[in-house]
Amino acid sequence: MSFAIGDKFETTFIINKAVYNGFVNIFNDNNPLHTDESFALSHSFKGKVMHGNILNGFLSYFIGECLPVKNVIIHSQEIQYKNPVYLDDELVFEAVVTGIFESVAAIEFKFNFKNADNFIAAKGKFQIGLI
Amino acid sequence: MSFAIGDKFETTFIINKAVYNGFVNIFNDNNPLHTDESFALSHSFKGKVMHGNILNGFLSYFIGECLPVKNVIIHSQEIQYKNPVYLDDELVFEAVVTGIFESVAAIEFKFNFKNADNFIAAKGKFQIGLI
Repeated sequence: MSFAIGDKFETTFIINKAVYNGFVNIFNDNNPLHTDESFALSHSFKGKVMHGNILNGFLSYFIGECLPVKNVIIHSQEIQYKNPVYLDDELVFEAVVTGIFESVAAIEFKFNFKNADNFIAAKGKFQIGLI
Repeated sequence: MSFAIGDKFETTFIINKAVYNGFVNIFNDNNPLHTDESFALSHSFKGKVMHGNILNGFLSYFIGECLPVKNVIIHSQEIQYKNPVYLDDELVFEAVVTGIFESVAAIEFKFNFKNADNFIAAKGKFQIGLI
């Protein structure tokens, strides 16, 4: 097993224009909260709110590319959005191993994304399996 | 309130090349399970397994664009992956309103994605807030 309880990983993600425009182009979620500055401002946000599922795309990269092994598959994910994220926000991502289930070759992590003000943007957990 | 318990929504999503290539280009998750046919076959899959978080992108579209109101934001999401999905798979998505919390303007849904063989590809729940 390449993992131990408490193993911690950290990386940084930026929601730049390429990520934002790419996400909109692929998935066509043009909800005004994400695309209409005046709509977002009128609902007390500081600007267009980035799609929460962009963070799940970053999570995909973390699991697929940043772990010490490549033979992994995601079993499940949970995420709670705590604070909005905006264009060009830099997010610090942290994940910690919180469970190891050797009999089923599965590992549980808790994670969070923090924005530049050190607010939690989102947090949750996921379980991966070793294939 | 534009929602009632039991309200059901259904739509179809296809993981075509544009979606798959777009997701890889944006998020750079080139894990071999998703990009190396022989690796995927050697691990008993039928071919390259599509990224589970593509389904969360579809969920973003559903919540942002397919509901009867646009003034929504996602509070939380949970997803369990039950069966792999492959390139060009057509997925039937179904979501049902399972909870309404008027005091906090929040609505809970359960959802699933079924593939062409009527297997559950993934299922879960999410909560949205009305803004």
